[in-house]
Amino acid sequence: MPKLSMFNSVSLDGYFTDLKNDMSWAHQRDPEWDEFVAGNATGKGRLLFGRVTYQMMEGFWTSPQAAQMMPDVAKGMNASAKVVFSRTLDKVGWDNTVLLKGNLVAEVKKLKADSGPDMVILGSGSIVAQLAQENLIDEYQIVVSPVAIGGGRTLFEGLKKTLRLKLVKTRAFKNGSVFSVYHPA
Amino acid sequence: MPKLSMFNSVSLDGYFTDLKNDMSWAHQRDPEWDEFVAGNATGKGRLLFGRVTYQMMEGFWTSPQAAQMMPDVAKGMNASAKVVFSRTLDKVGWDNTVLLKGNLVAEVKKLKADSGPDMVILGSGSIVAQLAQENLIDEYQIVVSPVAIGGGRTLFEGLKKTLRLKLVKTRAFKNGSVFSVYHPA
Repeated sequence: MPKLSMFNSVSLDGYFTDLKNDMSWAHQRDPEWDEFVAGNATGKGRLLFGRVTYQMMEGFWTSPQAAQMMPDVAKGMNASAKVVFSRTLDKVGWDNTVLLKGNLVAEVKKLKADSGPDMVILGSGSIVAQLAQENLIDEYQIVVSPVAIGGGRTLFEGLKKTLRLKLVKTRAFKNGSVFSVYHPA
Repeated sequence: MPKLSMFNSVSLDGYFTDLKNDMSWAHQRDPEWDEFVAGNATGKGRLLFGRVTYQMMEGFWTSPQAAQMMPDVAKGMNASAKVVFSRTLDKVGWDNTVLLKGNLVAEVKKLKADSGPDMVILGSGSIVAQLAQENLIDEYQIVVSPVAIGGGRTLFEGLKKTLRLKLVKTRAFKNGSVFSVYHPA
């Protein structure tokens, strides 16, 4: 059964995007950080998105700037199998993307029952909250960036009951980011 | 010159209180955690609060429950010199508390120019944001608890510009909390 993880960077005050849907405040790049990010973007897994994050990621990773700034990651992101959950989109233009318009929880249960590759949700706070509440997320990978931004979207928006997790590992980076991995408690 | 720190526990989604102004979701107690908390509540420093956090803390730490559950910490909290910043309060009832009704930034500059003890802000998100923007906070001590709560008050509420910090140290606790210390960048 494929494993379902979520990977997100959040600000010190808990936001994964700012109020303009921008994530560029998140990380100071250096060789250690670049190696970590490249290791995550191998193109082997399947990436899951809500519509808002999908559209932002598509805009960025298909741009010439992304190809120039982070060529390996851009290649990995564009080559990866991707799924976007949306009731409003009618078609998708980003390479290797499947649009799923059905009930989120039912669709994810189907994907997890399948023999497909492991899956990672990026961004997509409301999807994270909904799947977390159904105990469908096997691993939470959260990077806390050393920056406060004052407002934005939170990772578990709309969560209806408290979700207690178990810390599995922590790693501090020279750029000040703290990466922690959690499993359901 | 006294050092000004802030110490706060936040949920995985960045809140230091939930929507009911409750912080009790934050930590699973165990000997390691209790020792850490007791070490922070020595009664030697001066504690700074906004009105909302002050009233919540007063209610809790002067209660028989607090004296029973965490006797050493309660003793330290009640004995500590405390300052509450409020334009609406007219008097304060918690032991060893001074009410300051003037301009927040001016009052804190006076306290820092004084020869008093080191100071720690607890909770008090809007005060943290205002003082952070004026570069008056020398150290940020943040504990990320392994629990998502879906809503509440954020640590840097009302922050007007991005605040970039420098990670100084990180410590992971067995109860799943991750404690990180930051200095201004």
